[in-house]
Amino acid sequence: MSAFAEVLRAWKPRLETWLDEVLPKESTEPTRLHEAMRYSVFGGGKRLRGVLVVLAAQVFDAAPEVAREPACAVELVHTYSLMHDDLPCMDDDDLRRGRPTAHKVYGEALALLAGDALLTRGLALLGEARRAEAIGAMLRELGLAAGSVGMVGGQVLDLESEGRPIDRDAHALLRRIHLGKTAAMIRASAALGALVGGADANSVAALRTFGEHVGLAFQIADDVLDETGTAAELGKTPGKDRDQGKLTYVAALGLEGARLAAREEAERAIAALKPLRAGSTDLLAQLARFAVERTS
Amino acid sequence: MSAFAEVLRAWKPRLETWLDEVLPKESTEPTRLHEAMRYSVFGGGKRLRGVLVVLAAQVFDAAPEVAREPACAVELVHTYSLMHDDLPCMDDDDLRRGRPTAHKVYGEALALLAGDALLTRGLALLGEARRAEAIGAMLRELGLAAGSVGMVGGQVLDLESEGRPIDRDAHALLRRIHLGKTAAMIRASAALGALVGGADANSVAALRTFGEHVGLAFQIADDVLDETGTAAELGKTPGKDRDQGKLTYVAALGLEGARLAAREEAERAIAALKPLRAGSTDLLAQLARFAVERTS
Repeated sequence: MSAFAEVLRAWKPRLETWLDEVLPKESTEPTRLHEAMRYSVFGGGKRLRGVLVVLAAQVFDAAPEVAREPACAVELVHTYSLMHDDLPCMDDDDLRRGRPTAHKVYGEALALLAGDALLTRGLALLGEARRAEAIGAMLRELGLAAGSVGMVGGQVLDLESEGRPIDRDAHALLRRIHLGKTAAMIRASAALGALVGGADANSVAALRTFGEHVGLAFQIADDVLDETGTAAELGKTPGKDRDQGKLTYVAALGLEGARLAAREEAERAIAALKPLRAGSTDLLAQLARFAVERTS
Repeated sequence: MSAFAEVLRAWKPRLETWLDEVLPKESTEPTRLHEAMRYSVFGGGKRLRGVLVVLAAQVFDAAPEVAREPACAVELVHTYSLMHDDLPCMDDDDLRRGRPTAHKVYGEALALLAGDALLTRGLALLGEARRAEAIGAMLRELGLAAGSVGMVGGQVLDLESEGRPIDRDAHALLRRIHLGKTAAMIRASAALGALVGGADANSVAALRTFGEHVGLAFQIADDVLDETGTAAELGKTPGKDRDQGKLTYVAALGLEGARLAAREEAERAIAALKPLRAGSTDLLAQLARFAVERTS
């Protein structure tokens, strides 16, 4: 396992304690709604986005607790997006990370509403952030990343591209899809960490660029893993995207082309850290390499 | 027409100009998504919530423009809730205000995603509010009102109450449903106006109480109108709730009992304004009476 996989594993329980604290208890009415929210939030996952918020804040010497609210915010917004993606009218997935999806357990209406409530809680949590003067900027950043020109927009482009021939324009379209679907939220995670850490505007911009390239690297590596990983490693059936004729980096660039593109994005991410204080960004550079070297 | 209906009619174009300004253009990619968002936002409606934000801010001598962002925020969050309510897995409505619902025009997936994007834009818009020091408090207020213990929670209780016998506990359950589904957002609209207007904590609390009672009055009056209004007045088929065996105030209290309850809530709303400067709250008192005297 890479050294950074250990870093992630060490942070995960802390992130999950915070998430437990910021979510309503299962005993709070309506109990089934709060159960459904917690079922999805605590359904596994690396917590990469939340940990990125914490590590980005640390670059500016902020203690981990300072990043608690934005770290939970990005995890809750990410979870809502998975819940809505899994719904019958979207990807219609029965399994996620080896467990039945929320609508299989709680029904469609409750899964939809639990997703709505997680998005609401995620954004509103920024209103409780420890660095009050950064709330407005964090909210604008996360709103743009999650909304119609970010994550939701990428999802729409992805739906519209289904069944589209893989031609010379495919790579450019794919980049736009993944900038929206994946990279926007990872970019926002890095920027939120910088903002809550008290970074100046130039440093926030550097983290934003870092996050965007990490997000692209992460998504390209996902496409590669879907082709090369085993079911045990991935927790899902490999080759599903290819079998559905989905537009992926492997389909557009070939396996070796996609691997190379992922490494290039990781290097661009690391290059973006250059203006920041030497030594302060070592874990972020490890995170960028982990995004492309991981096996799950 | 009541004098306040004229006030609403006069404000509506201003609200809609602001909404047009804060939403991405239809020509912005993904164009179908932005079309679907605008189709629903500009589908009619009184803009009662947005106007309430403006009027509440005016109590504290704030100019209307100061209330622009929170006024648009509550309208966008309200629109998202209607879009998701209309979806096949929820109320499965084909018509809203005499027009086909968004999923009939754009399909389920896009209607779901357009709703998500409106919720995101609505909350994030608070990050652009003119009174920067109020952003955190406004975000916490709107997040609570729209989320799992507010509007979404009320919707879940409503779904769970379907087919339930109308017994002696029905009135208490009904109150909890409507406190969540309707009153929470009208309460938040009044509070947001106060917050962006620079009100002190006691005044914000007074507006919050005012808004909650107006919200209950408004919803009880809705139940009465569903029983007594004409299709032309309502823009929908009257009697639908009764025919579906829905738990309504008319079913629980009878027609006269419901009318009386609505008037009582309006009077409680007006009483809550008492601590505020005399003369400054006349329009709010008119709004409370309008909530129960309207014919559509």
